[in-house]
Amino acid sequence: MQSDNPTAAILVIGDEILSGRTREGNAHHLAQVLSATGFDLREIRVVADDEDQIVAAVRALDSSLGGAFDLLFTSGGIGPTHDDITADAVAAAHGTVAEVDPEARAILQARCDRMGTELTPNRLRMARIPVGARLIDNAVSAAPGFSIGNTHVMAGVPEVFRGMVDWLIPRLAAGRPVQSQTVEVRRGESEVAEELKAVAAEFPDLSLGSYPYHDERGWGTNLVVRGLDAARVGVAMDALKRRLSL
Amino acid sequence: MQSDNPTAAILVIGDEILSGRTREGNAHHLAQVLSATGFDLREIRVVADDEDQIVAAVRALDSSLGGAFDLLFTSGGIGPTHDDITADAVAAAHGTVAEVDPEARAILQARCDRMGTELTPNRLRMARIPVGARLIDNAVSAAPGFSIGNTHVMAGVPEVFRGMVDWLIPRLAAGRPVQSQTVEVRRGESEVAEELKAVAAEFPDLSLGSYPYHDERGWGTNLVVRGLDAARVGVAMDALKRRLSL
Repeated sequence: MQSDNPTAAILVIGDEILSGRTREGNAHHLAQVLSATGFDLREIRVVADDEDQIVAAVRALDSSLGGAFDLLFTSGGIGPTHDDITADAVAAAHGTVAEVDPEARAILQARCDRMGTELTPNRLRMARIPVGARLIDNAVSAAPGFSIGNTHVMAGVPEVFRGMVDWLIPRLAAGRPVQSQTVEVRRGESEVAEELKAVAAEFPDLSLGSYPYHDERGWGTNLVVRGLDAARVGVAMDALKRRLSL
Repeated sequence: MQSDNPTAAILVIGDEILSGRTREGNAHHLAQVLSATGFDLREIRVVADDEDQIVAAVRALDSSLGGAFDLLFTSGGIGPTHDDITADAVAAAHGTVAEVDPEARAILQARCDRMGTELTPNRLRMARIPVGARLIDNAVSAAPGFSIGNTHVMAGVPEVFRGMVDWLIPRLAAGRPVQSQTVEVRRGESEVAEELKAVAAEFPDLSLGSYPYHDERGWGTNLVVRGLDAARVGVAMDALKRRLSL
């Protein structure tokens, strides 16, 4: 698909995904938001709670560090426990260190005051922010995310992650939302490959995909046309349906 | 966690994941199988149906090409349509080309004969295998996957992927399965961080993780101890419960 939308990557940080304990869902949620907003998601990576792996991934993916994509979003590893090392690792990747941030500390203190709890050393860990970063609001549980360079660091708990996405994305300079149309056929992919290829060749500016599935009735395929211009997507879908006699 | 289990990565290939259309599930399934079998999954990547991205990822991840991990498993892009380019891209990464493989062709021909259909040029695309690769059996829909170097290429349709995993994994030299124990507490992570850190320091050969969640009753945390020795995992879990007065 031809697009000059800003490009993006997602880095998910967490042993629990790699061990199979948790099925990742934050990347899927953000992928939908990015498509609908006008960012072109090009890669998702999942790495362990391991400083070397995180640093290498941030450098490979954040264009401000010579990496491949305009924007990098991360999920996970900013909680209060010993294995929450994302702030330190992202700081290291950006050539700085994480320190207790006065604004973040005030946010956590205010929450503790409201809840009638203490700002313990463990809770204070969540105010450790790379020097030079801007905070990302956390409407659910106060402890903020942060942005440094083109890296946007968010929490792993799905409810908190979604809140941060809702706050952050409207503040970024987006391109044009992706338009898509889907048609479902009860045929295998092989039976539509010819027609799909012909329409793809006719509309090189659009993306045409086929997504087969198998259920109790046998094979079916979803055919999807995607592009930045809704009218053009419609013309291509009409052409595809004509070729498939739908 | 100390482990000399073989290391592994998963590469998921497919625009539909990055566009947010499809929530990826194959990597989660394989992550569970690898943990239970004795492989140490270290990274998951999702890239587009893009030859350059696939080639770069295969080279970065497959140790036989100087990449980071002992084994690489891929999912997606081996169907019959124009955007199924995984066989060609993996071949290119391994310095060879994909050609119609006689054994794969015979498998597809036999299936077409059984189904009373033709082995059309589109279907024959699914017999294109990198020269020098070994086939991976497909019990669901015949069209095989393949292994080349340390890269194991499987289909994206979940039912087919699972069948290929079931066939392939027992044929690989595994290490020791991961043992794990979990305890759930109705407290936030901050309230268990101290105890968790102390036990983690006492058992440096194990992995201790905390996975917070938020529901209608407020915050809770799952505490997980993982390691290769079940007795040692049990000892660490007992120590953790003692510290938490559970």
